[in-house]
Amino acid sequence: MFVLVNCKTYPCDAVEVAEAAAAVDETTDARVAIAPQAAQLAAVADTGVETWAQHVDPIDYGSNTGHTLAETVADAGAVGTLINHSEHRLKLADIDGSVQAAERADLETVVCANNPAQIASAAALGPDAVAVEPPELIGTGTPVSQADPDIVEDAVAAAAAVDEEVSVLCGAGISTGEDVVAAGELGAEGVLLASGVAKADDPKAALEDLVAPL
Amino acid sequence: MFVLVNCKTYPCDAVEVAEAAAAVDETTDARVAIAPQAAQLAAVADTGVETWAQHVDPIDYGSNTGHTLAETVADAGAVGTLINHSEHRLKLADIDGSVQAAERADLETVVCANNPAQIASAAALGPDAVAVEPPELIGTGTPVSQADPDIVEDAVAAAAAVDEEVSVLCGAGISTGEDVVAAGELGAEGVLLASGVAKADDPKAALEDLVAPL
Amino acid sequence: MFVLVNCKTYPCDAVEVAEAAAAVDETTDARVAIAPQAAQLAAVADTGVETWAQHVDPIDYGSNTGHTLAETVADAGAVGTLINHSEHRLKLADIDGSVQAAERADLETVVCANNPAQIASAAALGPDAVAVEPPELIGTGTPVSQADPDIVEDAVAAAAAVDEEVSVLCGAGISTGEDVVAAGELGAEGVLLASGVAKADDPKAALEDLVAPL
Amino acid sequence: MFVLVNCKTYPCDAVEVAEAAAAVDETTDARVAIAPQAAQLAAVADTGVETWAQHVDPIDYGSNTGHTLAETVADAGAVGTLINHSEHRLKLADIDGSVQAAERADLETVVCANNPAQIASAAALGPDAVAVEPPELIGTGTPVSQADPDIVEDAVAAAAAVDEEVSVLCGAGISTGEDVVAAGELGAEGVLLASGVAKADDPKAALEDLVAPL
Repeated sequence: MFVLVNCKTYPCDAVEVAEAAAAVDETTDARVAIAPQAAQLAAVADTGVETWAQHVDPIDYGSNTGHTLAETVADAGAVGTLINHSEHRLKLADIDGSVQAAERADLETVVCANNPAQIASAAALGPDAVAVEPPELIGTGTPVSQADPDIVEDAVAAAAAVDEEVSVLCGAGISTGEDVVAAGELGAEGVLLASGVAKADDPKAALEDLVAPL
Repeated sequence: MFVLVNCKTYPCDAVEVAEAAAAVDETTDARVAIAPQAAQLAAVADTGVETWAQHVDPIDYGSNTGHTLAETVADAGAVGTLINHSEHRLKLADIDGSVQAAERADLETVVCANNPAQIASAAALGPDAVAVEPPELIGTGTPVSQADPDIVEDAVAAAAAVDEEVSVLCGAGISTGEDVVAAGELGAEGVLLASGVAKADDPKAALEDLVAPL
Repeated sequence: MFVLVNCKTYPCDAVEVAEAAAAVDETTDARVAIAPQAAQLAAVADTGVETWAQHVDPIDYGSNTGHTLAETVADAGAVGTLINHSEHRLKLADIDGSVQAAERADLETVVCANNPAQIASAAALGPDAVAVEPPELIGTGTPVSQADPDIVEDAVAAAAAVDEEVSVLCGAGISTGEDVVAAGELGAEGVLLASGVAKADDPKAALEDLVAPL
Repeated sequence: MFVLVNCKTYPCDAVEVAEAAAAVDETTDARVAIAPQAAQLAAVADTGVETWAQHVDPIDYGSNTGHTLAETVADAGAVGTLINHSEHRLKLADIDGSVQAAERADLETVVCANNPAQIASAAALGPDAVAVEPPELIGTGTPVSQADPDIVEDAVAAAAAVDEEVSVLCGAGISTGEDVVAAGELGAEGVLLASGVAKADDPKAALEDLVAPL
């Protein structure tokens, strides 16, 4: 399973979370990665943890101010990027452009979406993976795998119908190892997490609990 | 073939274009429709022509100011709507919401997109049709069916691979009956037009030329 | 006092509200106007009531799809327009462009904003009026003139400091004649209303109550 | 004079530009600063040069993905930020929010705008400075101080009329020391530069030429 921890703009110490993740990653078959803010990418990558960007813009080198260039986040140490997170929705044409920009910079891509129809839509753009996160469950502490298992299975089926190469992650409300196992049983190949780890008093203990049953 | 004339915000007399379209529609097997601005929908529908909206928002009845509600454009006489036109790009989640809003109001839907990958993506959201319009050809007078026939065939194949029920229109640079025939031969079931008719000195003659070979 | 009723996308009969407003307008010194959706402008204007648009885009005649052109809403009977309503926030450069577009089409302009600093900012763009609507009070039924009288006085002072020609309306929570009087005493030359009239069981009675103390 | 070099997403070596700027800054009364991409802030700040962000979002700590938090760019070493650059236009309410976010994090603020009316509007939000950049001159190599000196003088007057504490920078087409001197004579207290330095074969020589006449 792929466990991707989104640090958002939480008041957490991203390097501390990264060090915890790097340590836990060595103890498990799961693959653990951290997505900090752009300005923290280099410091997080220096810990040796697998580092992801939270977003890249559908742009190339050139006259763009205040945007996130795929090549620059790759240079800072990122190996993948979220695209179209529910807190950063993009136009369809720009998701396409961001996936292409990320591929140009050799970044792995996870495109987020709300429901199985949008998951199919996202999968059609050829990312490495899609992530289904029902907006009504985000931040609730109720895992999607429990609150609405059908949506995960439907998302897995929807993505496969469009492109069998595209794997599916699930997010929203995941906070325990049981949730991660349940997500895997529904066909997800990974999970998106945020507050459960990044805002935990002890991020390392939180991650250890998460990967323990894997 | 479906011939949909987008009047944009051109300085044309939308009612005159509508009357021309209504007259020509009676003389041909082609299906001719007009998409005026929202404030002109009722006057255009009064001519008897098939009337389309240029856009609907992903909203329901409620607290929305300056937005376009599907039910209101239907009440004004529209029977269909464009969504995600290249001059009005939407977020993926909002294309999904607009398609659902339109269906709720019994409006037929055409979702526009730039290229075959985005066409597949749009088709996955379940509209009645998708329209491929390469941005670099819009307004050039060079028809996509001639400048880039592969893109039309690829769009037809991409949509069919996702959902065989979704038909494909093509746009960008269409201005003659020959272009419409060529589009049909490439698998398109209709065309999107704008300046070729709406800005013609004689919209009726322009439409007659367009449908003559059909 | 100017009493401007925003019908939003409420499930109300905009023509019925307009007829009520036209009737009440004849009985009072207050100036009563109605802002329906774009597709309803012509039908509302036909009632003889003063008719406003809810929004115009920062565009001119040309290649724009699904946008609201100032000239077209004026042709449909509008004499003014809201700009930058809290449900339709615009970029600063686009507020400037929308004010200019509206002036080009001889539409009166009211630019909305959240707080005194933004009111000064809006006033600097030269509209006819600005409207202060604290977002936290919208739809609460608690009038801004009562919940936060300072914000209205500060908005009046902020606008005057930038341009004495720009008048100030206030909105958010206004529903009684008393609220309108209180707004006037704080320096506002008008009020923005929505649900209190547009969603009333008897819009005419609601408007009569509103203007009774004026 | 304040000389702020915006590195945009140019294919330049931001650290090399920063080292050049740090060296030149020591030789001149002018104040030289560099604005790299967010992911490069820490590396640029490590050179000792005054470091600026290209943008901050109108957000606080919390659930925001792919956004730029003022506190995080400050932690990475930035001491100021551009806001509302012409390549990153914001809603009026969001410019207000970004200025407040920047102030909360002790970042100096420069709000960009197109013309004197928008400059007054930006000044009303209380930033430290505003920057006038006529979009039609950006990237032309023709300095605004030469192509349209009135716009600089009008911007200086417009800002002063709203708030005398707000200083004015000018941008667009600045590339020589003469342009900087001319900007100062028109009342500007600084200049925004980009390609003239960041894309120069020898950024240090380019900066030395720029500050030589100061």
